[in-house]
Amino acid sequence: MRLPNFLTPRTVVSAHCDLPCGVYDPAQARIEAESIKAIQEKYQANQDPVYRTRALIIKEQRSELVKHHLWVLWTDYFKPPHFEKYPQLHQLFNEATKLAGGAGTKESVDPADGDKLLAKIDEIAKIFWETKQA
Amino acid sequence: MRLPNFLTPRTVVSAHCDLPCGVYDPAQARIEAESIKAIQEKYQANQDPVYRTRALIIKEQRSELVKHHLWVLWTDYFKPPHFEKYPQLHQLFNEATKLAGGAGTKESVDPADGDKLLAKIDEIAKIFWETKQA
Amino acid sequence: MRLPNFLTPRTVVSAHCDLPCGVYDPAQARIEAESIKAIQEKYQANQDPVYRTRALIIKEQRSELVKHHLWVLWTDYFKPPHFEKYPQLHQLFNEATKLAGGAGTKESVDPADGDKLLAKIDEIAKIFWETKQA
Amino acid sequence: MRLPNFLTPRTVVSAHCDLPCGVYDPAQARIEAESIKAIQEKYQANQDPVYRTRALIIKEQRSELVKHHLWVLWTDYFKPPHFEKYPQLHQLFNEATKLAGGAGTKESVDPADGDKLLAKIDEIAKIFWETKQA
Amino acid sequence: MRLPNFLTPRTVVSAHCDLPCGVYDPAQARIEAESIKAIQEKYQANQDPVYRTRALIIKEQRSELVKHHLWVLWTDYFKPPHFEKYPQLHQLFNEATKLAGGAGTKESVDPADGDKLLAKIDEIAKIFWETKQA
Amino acid sequence: MRLPNFLTPRTVVSAHCDLPCGVYDPAQARIEAESIKAIQEKYQANQDPVYRTRALIIKEQRSELVKHHLWVLWTDYFKPPHFEKYPQLHQLFNEATKLAGGAGTKESVDPADGDKLLAKIDEIAKIFWETKQA
Repeated sequence: MRLPNFLTPRTVVSAHCDLPCGVYDPAQARIEAESIKAIQEKYQANQDPVYRTRALIIKEQRSELVKHHLWVLWTDYFKPPHFEKYPQLHQLFNEATKLAGGAGTKESVDPADGDKLLAKIDEIAKIFWETKQA
Repeated sequence: MRLPNFLTPRTVVSAHCDLPCGVYDPAQARIEAESIKAIQEKYQANQDPVYRTRALIIKEQRSELVKHHLWVLWTDYFKPPHFEKYPQLHQLFNEATKLAGGAGTKESVDPADGDKLLAKIDEIAKIFWETKQA
Repeated sequence: MRLPNFLTPRTVVSAHCDLPCGVYDPAQARIEAESIKAIQEKYQANQDPVYRTRALIIKEQRSELVKHHLWVLWTDYFKPPHFEKYPQLHQLFNEATKLAGGAGTKESVDPADGDKLLAKIDEIAKIFWETKQA
Repeated sequence: MRLPNFLTPRTVVSAHCDLPCGVYDPAQARIEAESIKAIQEKYQANQDPVYRTRALIIKEQRSELVKHHLWVLWTDYFKPPHFEKYPQLHQLFNEATKLAGGAGTKESVDPADGDKLLAKIDEIAKIFWETKQA
Repeated sequence: MRLPNFLTPRTVVSAHCDLPCGVYDPAQARIEAESIKAIQEKYQANQDPVYRTRALIIKEQRSELVKHHLWVLWTDYFKPPHFEKYPQLHQLFNEATKLAGGAGTKESVDPADGDKLLAKIDEIAKIFWETKQA
Repeated sequence: MRLPNFLTPRTVVSAHCDLPCGVYDPAQARIEAESIKAIQEKYQANQDPVYRTRALIIKEQRSELVKHHLWVLWTDYFKPPHFEKYPQLHQLFNEATKLAGGAGTKESVDPADGDKLLAKIDEIAKIFWETKQA
């Protein structure tokens, strides 16, 4: 249930635009990844060639957006002290963007690969929110 | 605190990619609008002309993204029964996109205008989450 | 015959760029919609899978452009007095963008759906030019 | 007056999307160029630095769109027989895209440069419509 | 033969960004064209429909990028004295962009068409480097 | 020194388009970075506010392109064995994209920062070409 996000005041804001404006949120990558998994499920459930081609076109774009949002976090939000505290972070981002790339959800029409991407994003999100609380 | 989003399972998913994949979330528009307000605040606090020009370039893009995410909700998520139940919905979207446009946050460097946009997005988000619960 | 447009002086100019520069024209949406219908006709006439996939890729982009041009008119050109005088206008824009979306020309390879989109754009264009003359 | 375009049936359609779909129209380049000239006029009339920076951002994009629409005509619409019949055509396109580029309307805030671009587009449009009638 | 381009030291750098910044290099068009040919070869070697659809989506984008990089050279780098000294230059660019367009590598999945595009780009690159040395 | 990259014959070509097509080349990032440094130099040499605003708009885009090309190498070209052999590689990419970001060439109008970015790209390019020869 996301509803409370919009009903409770949010005092912590963060940056995703290279100003930096200070607004970062792994939700951006996650929403796109949820979309990818949904597309994979719908692809499996629909044999129509027009539908399937459209699914591949859109999945290509959504995967690119996942990578974009992850790169913003990796390049703009995380700073050297974070990489020291979480030495696995570089590797995590590299794996996550690979999971969203040509050998991952761009190629795959299997929802299980969408799940792998979602799980990797959640690993990054967990670290992200730990650093926000620190 | 957004953290719980990523720790609790989400059973309801929804669509923002015209497939439709079924993944919609007003958080996308809100995150961009938070960024706009943060840019407006930083613009006010920084006299450097290079910084200010960059702030305007990025605010232009973020405002366009707010409009994009709002339009996706208005065109793809909301259906005729929603517009019947919420007759103010068309007007709300029109006002929200105007607040993110040339007479709104694209032009304005006043954080109060960022707040107006955020408030309008929250009005839409409230209806959105009511329709998801229905 | 569009020729006279370029041979006769035009005194009325109008805005589609959020400055606002004052240059608006429903022809932008219509030209893209004509392209969509032409693609649908060519899709029907050509069995080659490479050709058909390319047709779907391009139709996806053209449909998005139709929506973009319509949104600019709805958000930037039309003002509250227009919506009062033409109470059907919100509905018209919502229907037109739906006709260009996932349940419309993005999905459909039937030229009849291209025609429906063109007709809806013309309804909007008729109101547009009435407001320009007023 | 563009109104008649939408009230009279159009039997001749043409292509701008590389399918080719067969829909080409110099109006696309012209509408963007009209926008550029309007921005230049508004730039001159407004001293506000935020407004002026936004004008430059938008003029940059509109100039790029003019070049895009011209290139589509030059590459996709015009064929070898056209270049034989109109030997000045290559030169015209090169000059028009230069007028919309860094030494033209991208750099200039003088509406006279907008006019030069419009005049060059009209020269191309005149040839375009001659070839459509042939 | 791309090699000689890079064999000679380059002291003069030049522009591809309309400022003009003065940095131009036909390598940008060539790298995209090499990618197109590689996609065509992989398309021929892989029968999987998902793979093939993705290949067409990406080839469409790469072809557009080739055209973009060529247009930048034609519009921004080459000047009237160049067109006088190399009267075939307009024609070469028109042919090269056609080879990357709807009747060329956008449509074709035959690596021989990728080769034709590469050869045409190399003709342009040869002239480009001659003008740089002059 | 960029020169040696191109001095040796290249028989193996590789991928920057997520197919993967197999065509990668750090020259893409370098050409954009050269452009950034040239813009910074021209910015310093020109006091005209229109020129300077345009320089910032274009530098913003070029910096984004540098990051894009670097991310493609990091995500798509380099594989786990490379990261094992070159343990500094993750860090290098993170630093290079930061140098092209909001705290780097997006913000800075100092050519010395352009040089730092170029030097970092060359460190990556050196490793890239070592892995190609291996």
